[in-house]
Amino acid sequence: MTKESKKDGGVNPRDEAKERLENFALKVLESVNQIEPPKISIPSRSTSNIVFDEKERYYTISGKTVTRTSANMRQVKKFAQTMCAADFCKDLIESKKTATLREMYYISEGWETGGFADQGRSDRIVEDLESTFGVKREDLGLLPEEDGASIFGDIVIDEGGMEVKATKVGRAGYTIPPTMSDVEFVECGADCVLAVETMGMYHRLIQEEAWKKFDALVVALKGQPARATRRFLKRANKELDLPVYLFTDGDPFGFHIAMVVISGSAQLAYINHELAVPEAQFIGVTASDIENYDLPTDKLRESDVQRLKQLLKDPRYSDDIWQSEIKKMLNLNKKAEQQAFSKYGLEYVVDKYLPEKLT
Amino acid sequence: MTKESKKDGGVNPRDEAKERLENFALKVLESVNQIEPPKISIPSRSTSNIVFDEKERYYTISGKTVTRTSANMRQVKKFAQTMCAADFCKDLIESKKTATLREMYYISEGWETGGFADQGRSDRIVEDLESTFGVKREDLGLLPEEDGASIFGDIVIDEGGMEVKATKVGRAGYTIPPTMSDVEFVECGADCVLAVETMGMYHRLIQEEAWKKFDALVVALKGQPARATRRFLKRANKELDLPVYLFTDGDPFGFHIAMVVISGSAQLAYINHELAVPEAQFIGVTASDIENYDLPTDKLRESDVQRLKQLLKDPRYSDDIWQSEIKKMLNLNKKAEQQAFSKYGLEYVVDKYLPEKLT
Repeated sequence: MTKESKKDGGVNPRDEAKERLENFALKVLESVNQIEPPKISIPSRSTSNIVFDEKERYYTISGKTVTRTSANMRQVKKFAQTMCAADFCKDLIESKKTATLREMYYISEGWETGGFADQGRSDRIVEDLESTFGVKREDLGLLPEEDGASIFGDIVIDEGGMEVKATKVGRAGYTIPPTMSDVEFVECGADCVLAVETMGMYHRLIQEEAWKKFDALVVALKGQPARATRRFLKRANKELDLPVYLFTDGDPFGFHIAMVVISGSAQLAYINHELAVPEAQFIGVTASDIENYDLPTDKLRESDVQRLKQLLKDPRYSDDIWQSEIKKMLNLNKKAEQQAFSKYGLEYVVDKYLPEKLT
Repeated sequence: MTKESKKDGGVNPRDEAKERLENFALKVLESVNQIEPPKISIPSRSTSNIVFDEKERYYTISGKTVTRTSANMRQVKKFAQTMCAADFCKDLIESKKTATLREMYYISEGWETGGFADQGRSDRIVEDLESTFGVKREDLGLLPEEDGASIFGDIVIDEGGMEVKATKVGRAGYTIPPTMSDVEFVECGADCVLAVETMGMYHRLIQEEAWKKFDALVVALKGQPARATRRFLKRANKELDLPVYLFTDGDPFGFHIAMVVISGSAQLAYINHELAVPEAQFIGVTASDIENYDLPTDKLRESDVQRLKQLLKDPRYSDDIWQSEIKKMLNLNKKAEQQAFSKYGLEYVVDKYLPEKLT
């Protein structure tokens, strides 16, 4: 089955981001013309303003905002830096360029306002722009240093005019670029996404031709997935209607990796509607799997135990299956990695485990 | 200029590895037939047997060997595990498969000898096989979990029948597979390799079309480079006659990254002849650059100072330029990242710094 491409939201998200930045500048000009100090209203990202949306099943931010005004001596520098950052991003969009967050931090040394004391501060200004204007930093042209996911399977992608078929670029697969903004899905013959935690498992699934066997796009999350990876999963789910399966280690970090894909993180609550994939399904190693498959295990560390106890209270893990599996893992006092199935041979995970989990 | 391809050493290194493993088995059989306990002679990897080869300019191992014999009760299990590992690798080669070191560790649970207490021990058996038979673990089919380098530029590669052009696989470039053994260079129009430490700088060089400007293969080392990355650099230098330039941060870790490419690590002394690129040239940020370009800096940490003082005594850093630059960095008490050039604009590094360094 071949699915038709849809663009990211229909319009180019970078054009939209530019328009919002320009509107901000116009408002500032308007204030100046009316001899009023310019100001900006920024959604609060404090803990008290972050709520778990039971209906949408991800963290989001509530209505509280904070005002940053040029009339306040303590805020005027930050206000000016916000404007400089917006101006820098507008230039990036117009020149069709991107910059790393680190590059922006160094570039800010040349701004009239002076630079930032550390990169944490310039990153927070970027978060201000994201949450205020409802745009992703990727669409502003700003990127982290992260490495994108690797993808193998029957999909053709267009990157600003260059068509790439993910099965024709070598065994290591197609690497998604740091920004997914100008990536279009041209054609997809896969029926699902099979996202795995480690590069080891990724190469195993390619070698055993799991992408053919399950008609899947095999995706390497590479541990905690980058934002571009999460955006890819979101778009594959929304635009290509592909179910997303998450195969992680059977330990607290594996559960966390899966849940960040499913429900987003509290830290990025202001942008989760673009990233979270609430329909994604966890097919990672559970405490029951440890028993049923008699897997090689490691003992839980004290930090694992603490983390699992936290998860029990986390609203994202409130359903019965998570609750009972987490409790069972605490009782067993054991965890297992996804590569542990190789105890039964290299092919076992593809021939036995995944077929059983996927039905 | 287009260069003709040469295979890795002429013969397929995996076939050669298989032959050596089989010869080992034949010798064991021979001993058994002569009613002698089988044994194996393994080059010593202890510090006292590692020497810096002044002529070759990399670490190598000297002639000392240790004998592992089945006649010794304390060694017999390890001897049997060595045989099981060799047998497992032979199966991998015959089935044209690979496995991660982690998978082998789990698989060993099913061996007649029983498994290993931890992965460190099974990894050391693999090092024994490498050093004894003069083969790379990649050629035995064993891989680490590392992510391979990204490459962008005018090169066409063949991976077991699949031809890949590195400029046609998306902006993130071609990712080398965990083993370079069956990679062949089909065609190369580049005149040099420009290897950079960070993904941020990699994307900058692609965006500014540095690969065209310098006729370069741009390679992202991603910090301390994986062995497959170092093998790629070695082969590009040897088989394609390309000079290799190393552009890292101006700090002790950046110097170390460059030097491991140039002279290899002491830890891998037994395999450095396959990995080290003594002709590679360091064009990373120096203490002089910090002054001449008036770069944004960070203060050296106490650990940086200690590390720099160690480098001063390291034979790999004995030439005058390294000595004076390391001393100058200690005096300045400052370090700088490769992205610091963006203080002068995103293009500066490609328009000014690199042309100045490359001449």
